[in-house]
Amino acid sequence: MRAEIVMIGSELLLGQNTDTNARFLGETLARHGIPLYRKTTVGDNLERLGAVLEEALGRADAVLTSGGLGPTEDDLTREAVAAVLGRPLELRQDLLDALTERFARMRRPLGENNKKQAWTPAGAEPIPNAIGTASGFIAEDPRGVIIAMPGVPRELYRMTEDHVIPWLRQRFALGEVLRSRVLKVSGVGESRVDDWIGDLIRTQQNPTVGVLASPEAVRIRITARAANEEEAAAAIAGVEATLRERLQDLVMGVEEDTLEGVVDGLLGQLGWTLALAEGPTGGLLAQRFTACGSKALVGGAVYPRAHAAPTPEAAAAALAEEARERWSADCGLATVHDPATGVNHGCFVTPEETVHWETGAPPDSGLLQRRAAAASLERVRRVLLTALGARNGRAPRFGDGF
Amino acid sequence: MRAEIVMIGSELLLGQNTDTNARFLGETLARHGIPLYRKTTVGDNLERLGAVLEEALGRADAVLTSGGLGPTEDDLTREAVAAVLGRPLELRQDLLDALTERFARMRRPLGENNKKQAWTPAGAEPIPNAIGTASGFIAEDPRGVIIAMPGVPRELYRMTEDHVIPWLRQRFALGEVLRSRVLKVSGVGESRVDDWIGDLIRTQQNPTVGVLASPEAVRIRITARAANEEEAAAAIAGVEATLRERLQDLVMGVEEDTLEGVVDGLLGQLGWTLALAEGPTGGLLAQRFTACGSKALVGGAVYPRAHAAPTPEAAAAALAEEARERWSADCGLATVHDPATGVNHGCFVTPEETVHWETGAPPDSGLLQRRAAAASLERVRRVLLTALGARNGRAPRFGDGF
Repeated sequence: MRAEIVMIGSELLLGQNTDTNARFLGETLARHGIPLYRKTTVGDNLERLGAVLEEALGRADAVLTSGGLGPTEDDLTREAVAAVLGRPLELRQDLLDALTERFARMRRPLGENNKKQAWTPAGAEPIPNAIGTASGFIAEDPRGVIIAMPGVPRELYRMTEDHVIPWLRQRFALGEVLRSRVLKVSGVGESRVDDWIGDLIRTQQNPTVGVLASPEAVRIRITARAANEEEAAAAIAGVEATLRERLQDLVMGVEEDTLEGVVDGLLGQLGWTLALAEGPTGGLLAQRFTACGSKALVGGAVYPRAHAAPTPEAAAAALAEEARERWSADCGLATVHDPATGVNHGCFVTPEETVHWETGAPPDSGLLQRRAAAASLERVRRVLLTALGARNGRAPRFGDGF
Repeated sequence: MRAEIVMIGSELLLGQNTDTNARFLGETLARHGIPLYRKTTVGDNLERLGAVLEEALGRADAVLTSGGLGPTEDDLTREAVAAVLGRPLELRQDLLDALTERFARMRRPLGENNKKQAWTPAGAEPIPNAIGTASGFIAEDPRGVIIAMPGVPRELYRMTEDHVIPWLRQRFALGEVLRSRVLKVSGVGESRVDDWIGDLIRTQQNPTVGVLASPEAVRIRITARAANEEEAAAAIAGVEATLRERLQDLVMGVEEDTLEGVVDGLLGQLGWTLALAEGPTGGLLAQRFTACGSKALVGGAVYPRAHAAPTPEAAAAALAEEARERWSADCGLATVHDPATGVNHGCFVTPEETVHWETGAPPDSGLLQRRAAAASLERVRRVLLTALGARNGRAPRFGDGF
């Protein structure tokens, strides 16, 4: 079985949008082991869209389309599919009833334009849209199947996961499942990670191990192909154990874990609260902790201008202490920029110790904030793991001794 | 003249990358008035890539490709183009010399793999790569021209702007230029903007006027097609004057202007400094001011937890005053979240007045921060414009009286 994707919309050709749907569909099909051979983008033009669909149907078993199902004159997917399959469009009373009810609920009049969304190519099976007004549809043909979905990303995502993938799995008797899990490593670069687990990246077959550098962490993806979910999960767990054995506490988290979320969790385990004093991070640390719903953060201050002190280390220590006292927090974290050297200084004060560090500063101020924040959070994570380890009689390992 | 784009790389089909090159090329071709009819993505497979190129050459005058010019076995663009054009690959001594020199300069050995990058289809014209090792090439054929570029975004961007666009303009005698300018309107939604300038959006032909909603501003794009840069600029200036006459001070800025940058500039004009006290914005305001290199911001505090006060208005006013005093600033800006009602309260204190406002709060904490920050900055912008207007004897207009 092979699939193709057709993205429909002149705005996609004009570069006005980033095509997130194509990425999502590509990633989802890959996860389910469905080979995708081609992706075509075409504008809102009946003739050109028809030609693209005709060609795709000549090559692929399943053609997934995104876009062109709205109520406007530019929305031509229904018409193009009907023409390619040589069938008329038909008004579906069930879809019209659903639209009528939906518009009544929103207290909006159902215009003639909107009624267009109740038509599908004759014999097509509608796909419900849990979020918006545009139903999708599945139209089968001796050459293959066309599956039409709306272009609004969250509607397409939901429809793909709830209906299209299950339908494809059944229709094409796809036996295997593909599952993956991401481990996140922070504080070391991709090439250091490769030193430790490069053999697995190069030789592991199923599950495979892949590495991708991302701004704050190296993402290690374990991908298993198996007969069912349980076998896939077991295979992943085995490789995950091997990776964790090698990388130890360099593994910061999994999937969508963030450094600030992990640090907040560690502070919670230690029963410690946190106050911030931010120079070069400029409020970014506070913003990240508050956005993740931090329980540990009690307050913070932002100092856009240089702080008078004999040395930047002394300035950072004074600010961290000041933050602790002002907010009656257990811990204080301060970042200070030294304009004389261009270096960022950090200081983290806990009830047990005071830790200093330095990081370089890139010239771009947005990038400088992100780098300084990431470096600080990783240092704090290590200090907290060490404090927690001391209570549990287990020293953390961060790879230095490997 | 019509163009097509072919994006080459299995990772693009697997959804591992967002395809920024396609967006850039679409936007650039549109800007130069070159019609783009189709965009195809294909994997690193010689046969399928050849088929896609063959088809594209049958429809388009110019086929632009991205990717597949690296030194590895997966890089197949040279081979595919040579096959489609029915020509051999030839080693270009000039490219080999340039590669040899480049590698010597980097003190890296020039491997056999790397030498692959010195080959092009016979008769093709190489395109220099100012940044990386992969040269592009232009290969003409009676059916049309294939222009091959590397997939590394900044290399492709540079090559497109420096070589490919000028070459296309000359080869296809493209007489016209397309230029555009963006005005940003804040504090009102897309439908309100449509009430004021909808007639221009629907009837203006050259320049055209288009509207796009973005998170903090409505973007109004004026696009002119003209014989040269000067005529395009003059045509845009005429329409811009009409739009500004209608929208008055709702126009927050142009192009990449940000609310915080505009507010910082207004504070500078007034000679005022600013201190922050952030509840629901959680440090985001401070982060945005510091990231844009604010000259007005002297300090800020973040209060993740509710502040005791008789009312949220009183809490906001007290925090704004406290911030002003603590940092010896001219102005204080505070945001406070009222958990009882779910409403965000803002207060801005200047040497001349105290202004209060309320905004609704979406449930997602990241979105809540962004909405509260945007609402605060827009209110502050209006207060500052009014203060500045009072000095100049000119009251600002924000569309309410239209």
